[in-house]
Amino acid sequence: MKYKIKSRIWIESDHGVFLGEGRVRLLKAIAKTGSLSQAAKCLGMSYKKAWNLLNSMNTIGNRPLVTTAIGGKGGGGASLTAYGEEVIQTFDEINQKCWEFLDHELHKVSL
Amino acid sequence: MKYKIKSRIWIESDHGVFLGEGRVRLLKAIAKTGSLSQAAKCLGMSYKKAWNLLNSMNTIGNRPLVTTAIGGKGGGGASLTAYGEEVIQTFDEINQKCWEFLDHELHKVSL
Repeated sequence: MKYKIKSRIWIESDHGVFLGEGRVRLLKAIAKTGSLSQAAKCLGMSYKKAWNLLNSMNTIGNRPLVTTAIGGKGGGGASLTAYGEEVIQTFDEINQKCWEFLDHELHKVSL
Repeated sequence: MKYKIKSRIWIESDHGVFLGEGRVRLLKAIAKTGSLSQAAKCLGMSYKKAWNLLNSMNTIGNRPLVTTAIGGKGGGGASLTAYGEEVIQTFDEINQKCWEFLDHELHKVSL
């Protein structure tokens, strides 16, 4: 029997979750679509939920991850800051390293 | 701002999930109570759900993790096999190492 080990990581501050897979997916969708409402739509998420997630990240983060332009049809534009891009990359790298670490650990044991 | 990194791991086979935090919690509760129905009660889980989880582990695992005695009031006794105990320990050790690995990784980056 061949086993696979999976993981899910998230980063918290004293004020709650800062980053997790869903939040990073939202940031990537914003980068792709240039719009919070479009990003929410792509992910099958309500605009309100997407806005709350983004607001939470922007508040908890040391700097804003996304800047938004107000209003108009479609809810205005949104784009990642350099910090937002850096945060996505850091999260993805840690995630990738974690998977590799766990694969390695699983190979060391017999189940 | 001080961040903490959290993770959740699980082990899958081609036939679905073999082990995860909930399943390991169930195994520990069985070890503690000596009964599947008591273990389910402790975890606020239906007997049916606990039975299904245990059946899945016993089927997917290379050997049974728990042996059960049939019937009587309370649903008969249940106890961990040596393999079941080994599996819990392996899972907990990998989990612990994963947390330490992630803490270390988080300290290497600035967020």
